[in-house]
Amino acid sequence: MKNSIFEPVDPELLRVEAEIRSVADVEYSWLAELLDYIVNSGGKRVRPALTLLSGKINSKCNIASLIPVATGVELLHTASLVHDDTIDLSMRRRGKPTAASIWGWGIATLAGDYLFSKAAEQVSQANSVRADRLFAQTLMSLCTGELEESFSSFDQNQTRQDYFRKIGNKTAALFSMATESAGIVNEAPESEIKALRDYGYNMGLAFQIVDDILDFTSDENKLGKPVASDLLQGKLTLPAIMLKERYPKDNPIKAIFENRGKEQSLEKAIDMVRNLGIIPECYQVAQSFASKSCQTIRVFPDTACHRSLLELADYVVERQK
Amino acid sequence: MKNSIFEPVDPELLRVEAEIRSVADVEYSWLAELLDYIVNSGGKRVRPALTLLSGKINSKCNIASLIPVATGVELLHTASLVHDDTIDLSMRRRGKPTAASIWGWGIATLAGDYLFSKAAEQVSQANSVRADRLFAQTLMSLCTGELEESFSSFDQNQTRQDYFRKIGNKTAALFSMATESAGIVNEAPESEIKALRDYGYNMGLAFQIVDDILDFTSDENKLGKPVASDLLQGKLTLPAIMLKERYPKDNPIKAIFENRGKEQSLEKAIDMVRNLGIIPECYQVAQSFASKSCQTIRVFPDTACHRSLLELADYVVERQK
Repeated sequence: MKNSIFEPVDPELLRVEAEIRSVADVEYSWLAELLDYIVNSGGKRVRPALTLLSGKINSKCNIASLIPVATGVELLHTASLVHDDTIDLSMRRRGKPTAASIWGWGIATLAGDYLFSKAAEQVSQANSVRADRLFAQTLMSLCTGELEESFSSFDQNQTRQDYFRKIGNKTAALFSMATESAGIVNEAPESEIKALRDYGYNMGLAFQIVDDILDFTSDENKLGKPVASDLLQGKLTLPAIMLKERYPKDNPIKAIFENRGKEQSLEKAIDMVRNLGIIPECYQVAQSFASKSCQTIRVFPDTACHRSLLELADYVVERQK
Repeated sequence: MKNSIFEPVDPELLRVEAEIRSVADVEYSWLAELLDYIVNSGGKRVRPALTLLSGKINSKCNIASLIPVATGVELLHTASLVHDDTIDLSMRRRGKPTAASIWGWGIATLAGDYLFSKAAEQVSQANSVRADRLFAQTLMSLCTGELEESFSSFDQNQTRQDYFRKIGNKTAALFSMATESAGIVNEAPESEIKALRDYGYNMGLAFQIVDDILDFTSDENKLGKPVASDLLQGKLTLPAIMLKERYPKDNPIKAIFENRGKEQSLEKAIDMVRNLGIIPECYQVAQSFASKSCQTIRVFPDTACHRSLLELADYVVERQK
């Protein structure tokens, strides 16, 4: 990512980073070690940057409330990753062993719960019941999306509509909270709060689609996990759905989901997704959401924060990992 | 429990019960089934009753806010049980198969997360940032207590002090939130909020001590799990700590925790705890906390709710399951 994108909020991001690190300042050394490992496992801090940019886009910005909300947003994201890794039995994340693989899934589950509560406590420091409620509803969406993914795993009959609803819940809801909550704590007019919410939601959809594209097009080194691991875990994402749409009869997904000749079929699926024009079409879909997100914030004047939010839309689509 | 204890809040408890049931009113039938199973798995509803009694003890009671808070308290309790069962690999709870044993622990983990968020959303309906923050801090305490239990499992060197700190976090914090939050949403004077908090906290300690006594003195049918299952899971509770204190050299706990001759040693431990005067001493400790909790609410006038809170202290110590 170009370093300049976050420049308008660099000082505030440092404060958020310090808040995140301080989560590990607890009485018990065993808990401090566990939390320190989790919150310092890297991460691009895109979500708290979104909160800060969305907050500072307004000249009457309430920085004292934005910092804890941005911190809460990132901690909520971190907590959900810890639970995802626990549930998926993932051994590595961002090139490091997952907490579950080191401490066991029982402790990792509790650590995730702890971070959820810490996130809620941070958000409550903004003294806005509306932000608190949005936080709770966002966690509810996240869980619904993840549950839907669990219940539909290895189900071949999922449509684009199912996919968009699922990623709306599991990813876009959190992006949307990141931006909307900034408007809420600034007590911005409802029209601006809505513009920020729609920006975040569409950006989140674009972000997840690109994530799902990279799962097919990137390599194991960059991904930190095997290529097409979504398919291996029974998750049907946009590239695979498009493959099914184009070749309803002759596609390798059935074999992968039914575990017949998995290895060859997986190779074939990756090959077909990569070489039959599916990727550009997926990028078009991602781009259309990114463009939509840019349109929604046209109501704001041309400021450095506004330009960063527009640039972020390009970055989300163009990023390589 | 004598039915009369909850009588002063019977109509409100019915409303809370309806709110709890409505958690399962969701769009997806698979999620509705899962949530319905969990929230209707029985339970004495002691915690929401505490909130309602603590709220109605004040003549300027804010019922509209108490109902969602009481609902949130019970949902938080339910969510934490779901995660406990998942982490402990428990197959049965209250005589029924656990959600984890039916749906698998991944889905049970997410269902617990969902209920945490639903609990937070309910509490936020009381429109009190202070109640929202207390909710977050309570979940943090619960997690700290559970994590401490995980990290110290099969550790023989735990003292009474460790035990009281642990049950303070994992049990008393939630009882204390149940009562304190009622004072908060009523906007009661700080002295009353403190009295309610202390009542709940001491009551919670008594409640957990009795739970830990029953684990030794009750039978499998009443417990819905094997006798002394805490010891089997490496949890050192008050009766076992007292046993260690009395017989520092000749006690069977070392063998149980080191897995030598587990079966005979467990029998011996149960026998010693039951027959050497340890149980009455544990009950004395529980009784002293229950009495303390009654003392803290002497500031309130003599009303039906006040009498119920006093009676509840007796019930908590005398209950057989």
